[in-house]
This record gives sequence, C-alpha cells and structure tokens, in this order.
Amino acid sequence: MATPSSTVTPPLKDELDIVIPTIRNLDFLEMWRPFFQHYHLIIVQDGDPSKTIKVPEGFDYELYNRNDINRILGPKASCISFKDSACRCFGYMVSKKKYIYTIDDDCFVAKDPTGKDINALQQHISNLLSPSTPFFFNTLYDPYREGADFVRGYPFSLREGVPTAVSHGLWLNIPDYDAPTQLVKPLERNSRYVDAVMTIPKGTLFPMCGMNLAFDRDLIGPAMYFGLMGDGQPIGRYDDMWAGWCIKVICDHLGLGVKTGLPYIWHSKASNPFVNLKKEYKGIYWQEELIPFFQQVTLPKECTTVQKCYIELAKQVKAKLGKVDEYFLKLSDAMATWIEAWDELNASGVVVAPKVNGTAK
Amino acid sequence: MATPSSTVTPPLKDELDIVIPTIRNLDFLEMWRPFFQHYHLIIVQDGDPSKTIKVPEGFDYELYNRNDINRILGPKASCISFKDSACRCFGYMVSKKKYIYTIDDDCFVAKDPTGKDINALQQHISNLLSPSTPFFFNTLYDPYREGADFVRGYPFSLREGVPTAVSHGLWLNIPDYDAPTQLVKPLERNSRYVDAVMTIPKGTLFPMCGMNLAFDRDLIGPAMYFGLMGDGQPIGRYDDMWAGWCIKVICDHLGLGVKTGLPYIWHSKASNPFVNLKKEYKGIYWQEELIPFFQQVTLPKECTTVQKCYIELAKQVKAKLGKVDEYFLKLSDAMATWIEAWDELNASGVVVAPKVNGTAK
Repeated sequence: MATPSSTVTPPLKDELDIVIPTIRNLDFLEMWRPFFQHYHLIIVQDGDPSKTIKVPEGFDYELYNRNDINRILGPKASCISFKDSACRCFGYMVSKKKYIYTIDDDCFVAKDPTGKDINALQQHISNLLSPSTPFFFNTLYDPYREGADFVRGYPFSLREGVPTAVSHGLWLNIPDYDAPTQLVKPLERNSRYVDAVMTIPKGTLFPMCGMNLAFDRDLIGPAMYFGLMGDGQPIGRYDDMWAGWCIKVICDHLGLGVKTGLPYIWHSKASNPFVNLKKEYKGIYWQEELIPFFQQVTLPKECTTVQKCYIELAKQVKAKLGKVDEYFLKLSDAMATWIEAWDELNASGVVVAPKVNGTAK
Repeated sequence: MATPSSTVTPPLKDELDIVIPTIRNLDFLEMWRPFFQHYHLIIVQDGDPSKTIKVPEGFDYELYNRNDINRILGPKASCISFKDSACRCFGYMVSKKKYIYTIDDDCFVAKDPTGKDINALQQHISNLLSPSTPFFFNTLYDPYREGADFVRGYPFSLREGVPTAVSHGLWLNIPDYDAPTQLVKPLERNSRYVDAVMTIPKGTLFPMCGMNLAFDRDLIGPAMYFGLMGDGQPIGRYDDMWAGWCIKVICDHLGLGVKTGLPYIWHSKASNPFVNLKKEYKGIYWQEELIPFFQQVTLPKECTTVQKCYIELAKQVKAKLGKVDEYFLKLSDAMATWIEAWDELNASGVVVAPKVNGTAK
C-alpha cells in the first residue's frame, strides 16, 4: 500500500491573501507560522518608505510601501491613508484572491479554554464558507455549527440563510476600547472566551474592528474602504468603524451576511490612550450624527452591485454629512476615487508590481 | 461584638413570583430548593382539576386549577388555554409582583463549565436589573457585565441603555427543537455553554421559549399572553413563540430591552416528536405568514402603554392575519379578552382567592 501523504492542504490556500499593515519587522509572524505559512501575504508598509521591513524566513509575500502606492495609483493614491493602519485597504485592492484575512502585527495566537492554540484563520474560513442568518435571530447562535441547529419557531423558509460576506473576530487580553474607556479602565483585560459565532441581524450596526477581520472580496471588497485617516486628516482610529458601517448597510441592502464572534486572537499591547484621544475626539463627537445617518440610509433598488451601492453611499455622505464637517466632503470624494482605483486595478489583465515580491529567505 | 447573621436575603424576594404550569407532582422543585425556597410560587394546574398536585414541603405557593380559573375569570376564562402549558399566563395575570420567572417542570439545575450549580433565577434577576442595548450591537456582548464594557466605536449617547423587560434563558441537554428537527436529529444534545448575555437588537424577531423565562411584569406583563393553544384549538407549541413576537414588537415600540443567553437550565426530557408534529404542523405553515406580519407591523405613537399596544396589535392581527385562517380572528378576540381580564384583576383592591394558598407541609 502506498503511504498516504502527511501534507494536508490548508483550506482556500490559493484563494486567500493575508493583508498586514505595519511599520516594523514582522517577528509576530513566527507565532503564526503553523497557521499562515502556506498562505500568501500582502504587506502594506506604512510610514517611512526607506525603512526595510524584515519578514521571517519562508513566508511568501509581496510588500508595498508609500512609494509603490503612489506609483501604482498615481493621483488616485490620495484615497489611501498614510501613517494610519487604514492604509491596509490598499492591500485589499491589489489582491487578486477571493478572500482576505487582515490582522494587526500586535496580535498573537490565543488559546481556547482547553489550552489549545486557536487557528484563527481556519475559523474565519469556516465562518465565511457557511451561510449567515440576518433575518431572524437563532437563540442557540450559529445554526450551521456541529451540534447546533435552528430552534423551534425559526421559520423554515429562512433556514437556507444567505452568503456570508464578512467574519469579524474578537480579542482576548487587551479589549478594543476607545481612549476614554482606556483611560477609565487601564487595567481591564478580556479573559472571557465566548464560544459563539453569530450573524449580526439585518438593520443593526456594529463597531467593526480591523484587527482580526476576514471577508469575501468578491462579495463586498469594493466597500471595504478604510477612509481618510492619519497624516493630514482630522481623525484617526475610525477607519475600521467607517468601513464597518458602510459594509453593513450594503450587506443589508444586497442580502449578504456579517458574522461576529469566534475566532479570538491575543491582543498584546494597549495603544497609548492619550495619543488615541487626540486621534479619536472628533470621531467620538461626529459619530453621534454618523450613526443616525447610517441607521436611516436606504439604497435604491437600482444599486445591484457593491460599486453602485458604494457610489450612492458616497453621494449621500456628501449630501447629508457635509454639514457635520467639511471633512465628509473630502471623504465622499475619496470614496468615489477609491472605487475608480479599485475598478482600474481589478480590470482584467492588470498586473501590479509590488516593491518586493517573493519568498523571504 | 454581635455575630453577623448568616442569612442573606435573596434578591427581589418579595418582588418576584415563580410561575409553574404543571400536570404532575412538583418533585423537580427539590433540586431547585436552594435557589427557589425563599420565593413565592404560583402553580397553574393544567388538565384534570380533581387531581391533587403535590408540592414539596416548605415551599410557599398558591395553586390554581381549571375550576379556579373559570371561577375567577367567568366567561373571560375562554382566553386561557387548557391542556397546554400556555395556561401558565394565568399565573402572570394573578401575580401582584413586579417580576415573574417561569420554568417548566422538566427543567433542572444545570452546571457551569467549572461544575458549579447555576442559580438560574439569580442570573435572570441580574439580566432584568441591568439595562439593555437594542440600538447598536456590542461585539463583546453584555457591556454591563463585570470585566466588559462598550467597545471602541459604540456611540456614547447610547451607553446608558434602556430598561430590560425580558430575560430569555437557554437550555443544556435537550435543545428546544421543533418536531421535524427532533425527528431528523433525535440524539442531538446541547452541550455548548456559551458564556454570554446579549440584547436582541431592535427590529429583530426571535423564537422565545417559555421554558426558562423571566420578565418585568410592570413593563411588559399585559403583552405576555400565550394565546389559544391545546384543547379545542388547531395548534399547540406556538404559545411562547406567539408571545415572543408580540412582546418584541411592543418592546421595540416602547423602547424596552429583550435579552437572551445565560442562564442555562438542564432540560431533561425530549417531548414526543410525533405528538409535537401534530400540534405544530399548522404553526409551521402559518408562521411563514406570521413572521412577515410581525416584521412589518408598526404601532402608532398614540400607543403609549402596553395595553394600548396590545389592543392595537390584536386589531391588526384580525385585519391582516384573519385571511390566513379564521383561527386568528378567534385569537384576536382572545387577545382583547386577555387585556380586559388583566385590567380587571389588576385594578387596585382586587383580591384573588386561589384554591390552595399557603406553605406546603
């Protein structure tokens, strides 16, 4: 008898890119090696482009710094943030894969309650490949999970679910708090492992964190824009929130699902709350008008693609949020630019040359 | 120094009634003794009124059988189901307390993952006494829980939350499945302890199970009607579902919260799926029209009390569901009768005499 191969092909190996925004050497990848080594990485280098980012040996990656972004996008590079992790969305744009997983470089492998290392990527893939249930709440959580199902009273016509566009993972140790909460509770750590994945119901907004996030690029990619943050902008730390509100209203409109819950990663380091406060304070204030806007926004039924939805949303941002602050006029323009750039790079036959491309040695 | 008393007064001891519908001796209370013994029980005896229900020694209770219900409500007794656990809602009506906990007599004390007995009632009380957050999803679940908070991006104006009207608890062991799922998965057991309590977002319906349920009678009591089920009715096992859809749209309208998750009870016995199928099959079919009705129903702003909301809902049930089946015409009338009976019994100064009242010896 032939000896069976001991190599197991990881799921979606050739259909998923891992996008990492960074300003430092990627030593954190060592811990992720067992789970990430077969996947392709897209590294978006933020800050000084003359700096060299070291990638641990054996990882297959491409890397883009600010010079690459400017070269590739030309004047449209203005829509990609600088000196803010919002720059990661450039990686979503240049990927040619169906799925994206994005993770911060201060996130490590967490352990489940039995002490086993959590393969976060595998859980995200499982979340993305099983349907979502946005139209009715299942009290036993994910009905597609082994050992679970729809409970009594769940309409049978809704049990097929809808395609899942986004999988939002959580964090043990340092919770994703805003600056005021960080200041008030500097020592709070998240040690509660909640063994659940759930669909966020249709019509409900949520705070999407970009630290540990996966999505189906074909289904929702063009809406996964992280806005204008950081250098030269009046706001920071709202990049993922902005994207989360936009993708949620578009997923709701297009009948796509957004999940949250498992997997957990281990978030190692709290960012400086004083610096964060400076970045956030306008967002904290503006948000009180943004949330009602996103709660009430409706997209016309002619918006049948993500691009059409996003352009329409950009128009409504200009019309309705422009009066909150002129920043939103600029943001609206950047949203439109982002879609133009996305469509150009993703037209058939376009090849993008990164600065570095290959396997780290 | 005086010796401190070792007696700890249980929370809400004089403000909460435990309502139990039953057809058998209440031996299951023995297991609940440490948690229930200080509370008053309202036992609603279903089926043959000549049968004697034994209550374990030391419990303080009042008991109503069908004769009592007929005597107390007169012609309005027609709104209380017979030979169906829906009869439990009579107990909600005769209670004079602010809070109700209702539990089935095949539910036992579950253990948490550390092996400790779960005090389900205490968890429900904690759920009811802390606010709900129906307007925005918090990804770290209950933000009011020890060790948790609102995450970055959660609007500050929404962090006070709203009063909690309902706490829906879950079940380990036998999951609450419908007959078709019971038939397909006869051996499936729920062994997943999900350590979370969450608010069901505004605008989202859920399947409310009456097995392990607590609510604030002052806030939502008059809407907690379990409908017409069982003897003489074309449907069963939709009593709690019906109540769940009604209370949810009314809570959404009045700005009240509904929570689900912890606590778990141990559900000991699967009911007969063949019998259940007979009870359920019309509900499974009708439900496909009921859910869109409840998803679209709106209550006018003049409906400022639960009673006004419920009467308005009864009218819309008659107008819009009457064409599904004439059963809904009858149900609409029963909903109106229920409110009349509720208001009569709950007018100031009304004293209801149960069949048995006192402490079991």
